[in-house]
Amino acid sequence: MTGQPLWTLKLDRSEVDELAGRADPEAPLAGVRFAIKDNIDLAGHPTTAACPALAAKPAGASATAVRLLLEAGAVPVGKTNLDQFATGLVGTRSPYGACHSVASPAHVSGGSSSGSAVAVASGAVPLALATDTAGSGRVPAAFNGIVGVKPTRGLVSNAGVLPAVADLDCVTTLTRTVAAARTAFAALVRTDPQDPRSRPTPPRPPAGVAARMRVVAVPDGDLDLDPPHEEAWRAALDRLRGVAAHVVTVDIGPFLDAGRLLYEGPWLAARYAAIGRYLEPDGPHLDPTVRRIVMRGRDITGPDVFAGFERLAVLRAQTEPVWADVDALMLPTTPGHPRLADVAADPVGVNARVGTFTTFANLLDLCAVAVPAGERADGLPFGVQFVAPAFADAPLLDLAASWCGEPAAPPPNPPGTALLAVAGAHLSGLPLNHELVSAGGRLAFRARTAPGYRLYRLSGPGVPRPGLVRTGDGPAEGIAVEVWQVPHQAVGGLLDTVPAPLGLGRIELDDGTPVTGFLAAEHGVRDATDVTSAGGWRAALNQPPG
Amino acid sequence: MTGQPLWTLKLDRSEVDELAGRADPEAPLAGVRFAIKDNIDLAGHPTTAACPALAAKPAGASATAVRLLLEAGAVPVGKTNLDQFATGLVGTRSPYGACHSVASPAHVSGGSSSGSAVAVASGAVPLALATDTAGSGRVPAAFNGIVGVKPTRGLVSNAGVLPAVADLDCVTTLTRTVAAARTAFAALVRTDPQDPRSRPTPPRPPAGVAARMRVVAVPDGDLDLDPPHEEAWRAALDRLRGVAAHVVTVDIGPFLDAGRLLYEGPWLAARYAAIGRYLEPDGPHLDPTVRRIVMRGRDITGPDVFAGFERLAVLRAQTEPVWADVDALMLPTTPGHPRLADVAADPVGVNARVGTFTTFANLLDLCAVAVPAGERADGLPFGVQFVAPAFADAPLLDLAASWCGEPAAPPPNPPGTALLAVAGAHLSGLPLNHELVSAGGRLAFRARTAPGYRLYRLSGPGVPRPGLVRTGDGPAEGIAVEVWQVPHQAVGGLLDTVPAPLGLGRIELDDGTPVTGFLAAEHGVRDATDVTSAGGWRAALNQPPG
Repeated sequence: MTGQPLWTLKLDRSEVDELAGRADPEAPLAGVRFAIKDNIDLAGHPTTAACPALAAKPAGASATAVRLLLEAGAVPVGKTNLDQFATGLVGTRSPYGACHSVASPAHVSGGSSSGSAVAVASGAVPLALATDTAGSGRVPAAFNGIVGVKPTRGLVSNAGVLPAVADLDCVTTLTRTVAAARTAFAALVRTDPQDPRSRPTPPRPPAGVAARMRVVAVPDGDLDLDPPHEEAWRAALDRLRGVAAHVVTVDIGPFLDAGRLLYEGPWLAARYAAIGRYLEPDGPHLDPTVRRIVMRGRDITGPDVFAGFERLAVLRAQTEPVWADVDALMLPTTPGHPRLADVAADPVGVNARVGTFTTFANLLDLCAVAVPAGERADGLPFGVQFVAPAFADAPLLDLAASWCGEPAAPPPNPPGTALLAVAGAHLSGLPLNHELVSAGGRLAFRARTAPGYRLYRLSGPGVPRPGLVRTGDGPAEGIAVEVWQVPHQAVGGLLDTVPAPLGLGRIELDDGTPVTGFLAAEHGVRDATDVTSAGGWRAALNQPPG
Repeated sequence: MTGQPLWTLKLDRSEVDELAGRADPEAPLAGVRFAIKDNIDLAGHPTTAACPALAAKPAGASATAVRLLLEAGAVPVGKTNLDQFATGLVGTRSPYGACHSVASPAHVSGGSSSGSAVAVASGAVPLALATDTAGSGRVPAAFNGIVGVKPTRGLVSNAGVLPAVADLDCVTTLTRTVAAARTAFAALVRTDPQDPRSRPTPPRPPAGVAARMRVVAVPDGDLDLDPPHEEAWRAALDRLRGVAAHVVTVDIGPFLDAGRLLYEGPWLAARYAAIGRYLEPDGPHLDPTVRRIVMRGRDITGPDVFAGFERLAVLRAQTEPVWADVDALMLPTTPGHPRLADVAADPVGVNARVGTFTTFANLLDLCAVAVPAGERADGLPFGVQFVAPAFADAPLLDLAASWCGEPAAPPPNPPGTALLAVAGAHLSGLPLNHELVSAGGRLAFRARTAPGYRLYRLSGPGVPRPGLVRTGDGPAEGIAVEVWQVPHQAVGGLLDTVPAPLGLGRIELDDGTPVTGFLAAEHGVRDATDVTSAGGWRAALNQPPG
């Protein structure tokens, strides 16, 4: 169909038909054809990881992810090509041959999930399983104009997946729509006793994860993109303003520094621990670049590994304050789109640059969705990714759907609950937030007030509290609030805990919606300090008083 | 006072008086004298870590933990001796001299927090700061008849603490009562931007952590204790039956296997990464045993480290099912109490055996409290520890208080909430548990029903559900239930979700208390499968049907 070396194995038509015949026609993925990256086991067939010498015997059982798709009615059609041992982001490091972007024979397909991406983008299948340690699912999604969903680590089982960096590997989906990915994940997300790193979906999202994402951060400063990429990125920034209610900028330096540890720090030793035994003796069955990179892991010392963890812990702590005020981060998926010839000229350097914006996600325990973002001036697909904290997968998929013009999944305000805007000590992470949580509340979304509100630091004993007042002369950009969804019956109890001059009243949000929220009586803030210029209570707390 | 080498530095009386004079007399720890293990910084004084050559200059600032105690009104009196670089569990590895148990000059004090434990046990101070990586806080607590609280990793800042294994180190308190430890932790638990591994207290406890601990597991099988220890342990098991409502047994093999990784696996490389620079050149200022052990870390390879993580991940997954049905684990703190002469004869082997039951806690991200448990026949103090999952610190302190005959802290049933017993799909981790959590519920305690109840597997579509029926002929040991504390207003909504033949009624618990809970109508279970013999729904789910 494409002439590309995207398959390492195509199932016989008879086997596909037989599997299709076995599927329950009522199952959620009944009859959906899917491709499987060839580092993931399919029972009865060998797993090569693009190292044919590995394929000594067929897998005894399917990987858990494959089994769950089969149980949901989906039908596998074959195993797909990849950068050998899933080590690479280009799609050229394979003895089965190099793939290229569906949009250009001269440009790389991206990898390591090259065959899976080309299979989906070329229309051969609507769904493919991939993996993503450094960006192996998201990069080929970007280079082929499709959707790559890299969930939170541990939500999808890695049992039956050949490890690259076992602590970081994530089974990933490649699809043409966010909706298709959502349906697949409904089948794929299960705790699995076969995977020691399997993590259950928490019964409620972690602190600070909003049900609806409205505040999106983008990097400040120059990203050093290739010129056609830069132009497409600027268009994406414009488009974001129509998707997110608030776009803010953040310093992504600590994110990128953390990402560099994946290949420049000790994690290569994890790759060597996982696959080193396949690298000796050398031979033509081994990709020379992959072998050279992974062999470097052999000589990393144990103390170096722990020094790397120390460095990661410091960088992670530097990134975490970002998530106090931001729902998701939008970044270009890659800084450019290299040609096959560029990769041949500098196999390691070009590959490393491709991963600039993707390598940090798993090290920092983030989830990410790569989505198409139009085309560059030269007609190549351009892609961006949305990144959010662990276990924010569901609202992140909604944000990605909104970006793609697809409908979001959940209703914003279930029956029996009220929306309640908070602007002070009830914000996520602040001292009274537990009152909302104990009452069964959850963070619905982050917002700002309409123009005209001011914020005051109240004096008085106990937890420091602000007063929000609509004076009419507050700033146009409003004051930062969180809107919580709280059971109706709990609202009265919360009001009981609020001392004068605070009370509940109507607050107008940035989009004109009125919601109930904590307000101060105007007379009550006469002796209070005006902290409006901070823009919100969390920022005001970080300012020295007076 | 004791003639023991417990201090590395005693503050001048004038400095102590000056610090005491500065403390707010209304502060929660006003005037409380405390000792500081000498791997924790106190501003203006050197930190030796029992390596005097390290003490080149005084610390510029106090460790965060010290600063928080000072802010709470406590007054430091000195720095205490330790196994050098906090590497050891015996208290003999110090150029300042070996400590001994306050109960016997021939028996070790335990370590590494030897001086802190002796200072508290001898009455010199009511509170000491210690650290615990492998058991360094709990072991000397046991050997001196006092309380050692090792909180969940990251709750107390490690900023200003010399690392041993930075990912695992925990600031620990040594006190004579649980109440004193609780007061100290109220001051010590703060998120700290200075410590990249600082973790906030979650706004609600993690899934499965009960507010009140009633089900305690003890090891099955022989623990290979020294004979006088064995006798004291049997007495402790008897005493436990008066403290816990249910005592069950578990296989602690995977816990102990995980613990062995700390010295036999790759984590020695972390110690070398932290303090290797102080070990060259060798000299009389270095304890030869400590140096020999830590130098082994230099030669551990990076791939070995990741192989060790793989092994830990597998063992951790093997331990986790224990916490589905159990609130806490009780173990002897140590398998015996060696003499100074035993340690001299076999410094490494005796030390390793002392840590048998303590080394796993930090590797598996557990919290632990070591408490006195009477005396052995020879008059030496005997100690046990209670161990629970991360962030179960508060209910674990209550359990320890109950063991010690001290009052628990929290009221069991806050106003505005109802207790609701669940026996099926609403149990923690099962498919309908999120309904309780979303309604603002939390797990109050684990219990069993009174005798006479039976459990049936109902047929029907959707999530598999059991029916609990008081037939009168059920087993004497009852059926496992969880009792949730749910806002009053939410109970009606939960009832709406329950299909016939299930409904809400009165369930009698093991202790005779009646609570509201999910029951099945007797006629509704006529065609259902009796799964009573499983003892509870979680166990029934793990049995093959039919």
